[in-house]
Amino acid sequence: MLALLNRRMKTKPLRVALLGFGTVGGSVARILSERPELADRLQLTYIFNRGIARKRAAWVPSSVAWTEDVDELFRSKPDAVVEVVGGIDPAGGWVRRALQQGAAVVTANKMLLAAHAPELLHLAVMNHTQLRFEAAVAGGVPLIHGVREGLAGDRLLRVAGILNGTSNYVLSRMASGNEPMAAVLDDARRLGYAEADPSADIDGEDAGAKLVVLAGIAFRRHLRLPDIPRRSIRAISAADFRYASRLGCTIRQIAMVETKGDGFHAFVGPALVLRGSNFGLNMGANNVVTIAGYYGGENSFSGAGAGGPATAVAVVSDLLSLTERERDHGEEWLPARAVPPPARPYYLRFVVRDRPGILASIAASLAHQGINLDAVLQEPGYPKGALPFVITVEACEEVALGKAVQEIAAADFHAEAPLAIPMLLGEDPRT
Amino acid sequence: MLALLNRRMKTKPLRVALLGFGTVGGSVARILSERPELADRLQLTYIFNRGIARKRAAWVPSSVAWTEDVDELFRSKPDAVVEVVGGIDPAGGWVRRALQQGAAVVTANKMLLAAHAPELLHLAVMNHTQLRFEAAVAGGVPLIHGVREGLAGDRLLRVAGILNGTSNYVLSRMASGNEPMAAVLDDARRLGYAEADPSADIDGEDAGAKLVVLAGIAFRRHLRLPDIPRRSIRAISAADFRYASRLGCTIRQIAMVETKGDGFHAFVGPALVLRGSNFGLNMGANNVVTIAGYYGGENSFSGAGAGGPATAVAVVSDLLSLTERERDHGEEWLPARAVPPPARPYYLRFVVRDRPGILASIAASLAHQGINLDAVLQEPGYPKGALPFVITVEACEEVALGKAVQEIAAADFHAEAPLAIPMLLGEDPRT
Repeated sequence: MLALLNRRMKTKPLRVALLGFGTVGGSVARILSERPELADRLQLTYIFNRGIARKRAAWVPSSVAWTEDVDELFRSKPDAVVEVVGGIDPAGGWVRRALQQGAAVVTANKMLLAAHAPELLHLAVMNHTQLRFEAAVAGGVPLIHGVREGLAGDRLLRVAGILNGTSNYVLSRMASGNEPMAAVLDDARRLGYAEADPSADIDGEDAGAKLVVLAGIAFRRHLRLPDIPRRSIRAISAADFRYASRLGCTIRQIAMVETKGDGFHAFVGPALVLRGSNFGLNMGANNVVTIAGYYGGENSFSGAGAGGPATAVAVVSDLLSLTERERDHGEEWLPARAVPPPARPYYLRFVVRDRPGILASIAASLAHQGINLDAVLQEPGYPKGALPFVITVEACEEVALGKAVQEIAAADFHAEAPLAIPMLLGEDPRT
Repeated sequence: MLALLNRRMKTKPLRVALLGFGTVGGSVARILSERPELADRLQLTYIFNRGIARKRAAWVPSSVAWTEDVDELFRSKPDAVVEVVGGIDPAGGWVRRALQQGAAVVTANKMLLAAHAPELLHLAVMNHTQLRFEAAVAGGVPLIHGVREGLAGDRLLRVAGILNGTSNYVLSRMASGNEPMAAVLDDARRLGYAEADPSADIDGEDAGAKLVVLAGIAFRRHLRLPDIPRRSIRAISAADFRYASRLGCTIRQIAMVETKGDGFHAFVGPALVLRGSNFGLNMGANNVVTIAGYYGGENSFSGAGAGGPATAVAVVSDLLSLTERERDHGEEWLPARAVPPPARPYYLRFVVRDRPGILASIAASLAHQGINLDAVLQEPGYPKGALPFVITVEACEEVALGKAVQEIAAADFHAEAPLAIPMLLGEDPRT
């Protein structure tokens, strides 16, 4: 016991400067102020924010300096800088500056990492310091440590997740309520689950950036965000949930990356998932991530994907990990080569002005590409002028499917553009 | 990039000796043999097992020495010893010997840890070495790293889990099939999910030992296994699932530890859980663990709880973590003070020889202890001579409930002993 205590005593607390005092930054300061048992390891020294007269909080200890001058903060030579400003500029410049002067950086900034992680990680290695980002994906869910260390012994094959709380809130509400997306989005905005402009959430940019970080964590490879195919969930209708349900499925926004040889395939967008699966059972704004390995099979992590306190826990955990290790090897993300996705079954939904011959025409286009029909579903009760029906097809290549759908979309019987989304039915990536 | 590579090159691989070549040990050797990218960090040097003539596997590299003489293995002065023999003796002696000669130890041995973790951890600190045990709880689920590091920033309040695959297999089958436990257990034995004598699984000893390890991970406190109240799932009948279902619940074997002030309350046994909760949705032999923190709320981890390859991934991950860190602070588990559980609602099931006045008599005994009835359920279709019915009571102290049940059990109308199990309905430990 004494040996242990003596060893602990010798280290000085890490001097921590906070860039940004919004929801997450405020929660970080609160945890550091409220947990006295952390005081011998972490000491909050500086808080930078615009308009500190308005921001300054009485519960922050008087030993902490507040500043609107970022240069002043850097001149104080903090041991660690927490960046919770968000966005690429000016946050990126500040992260570089911190690393260049040898400070460790803890960031929750997924957009910055998605765009510049390889360069920033390299800069950390060159300056013998650390860049940590547990808070950048799935808020409070302790993914990085679980995957990096807990699954280090496995050969990882696939990472998939529900990474955007807004989209999951919208889709899980639609699944249970038979409401149109517009109405659910209005509610989500009112409850604070969606922003005034939810495009980044529902069109997949947010989940895509998180997927880039997740792929970096799992594979130490850098997928470029513009290279990841993204589809919006905007086209999903109440009818889609009815048809999905007949197939034992529901619909979720999925972000997924798989290895194949030395290449990687990634995508973000709506997918049919089994109702009883981890994804199908995930409700509200919760996040869930599954990791499939060659030896250990599938593990799943879930929890609050966002929110100030949950994200702040991840930031403080990263700060603590800096005090635990004398030196880390550092890491680099190598470029990732994109490969086509594996053959998959797809769900095709058409909304047509009904007339004879439509099914025959669609079936012919699919047959041209060698794609086999699996099921044709048509529920009663829809108007003839805008009739939704569904065709599911057996596993096929995405390229062939794209050609078939393009040919089908050129016909004049559509009341809405055709929708094609993958069906993820729990395929084992080892087979 | 060069800086990084150079730093990696300098370290020699860790020389690893394996005690035990059963299901887990075999899988550890297989991962180390099959993943050449690990060769510069981990080198398997020795395998100890009884009867190696029979055990020796052709795919193990010829550089590995096989021995039936444990002294020979220790004389080779391995850097790390993997103990996957199981049981307290002789495994415990070997673990001590390894630590005393300065080797790091990686073990999957929950029974040994439950009995002796504080002493073994102390021995590791005193000998400036490490004891790691990611594989001892929930097999392949990367709990330790997630909780220890990923949630280090939080103040943890509660850890609860389904930690025994056999019990979960039995209960989730009973929930969906209306079969008696004996029939399901027979099937489980045939399929390899249960041992010939499943007592350690269904009576809670296995889950209890894992809970001791989990509490050590989350709180760095040592709960003594004999101090943890354990109830068997043996008394659960098909009727209980029918009644639970009417309450929106199902039944699972739960292992749980909560803090209260500076004390801890733990238990292992059957509990009613909501059908839509993480526990209620957990099927088959899968494990799931939820961790609730003051700041971050609830996180959940799930995956295969056992099996050679999944457990071996955890062992290899522990070995890799030994190569990542130059020196760990080491850890100690302090004794835990037991406190009574919080007041909870309970499910009481009686099987009686029906006659007038039974309900009045039971209600009077509950009233004597100030316990309020919540619901009385009696399903039709049962024989009068062995009539099962259920009373649920509002949140009450366990001691008071125990007294009431004792008084009720003394009556002469019972065809079976009364059953009282807690209802865990998703209470937030922060309130």
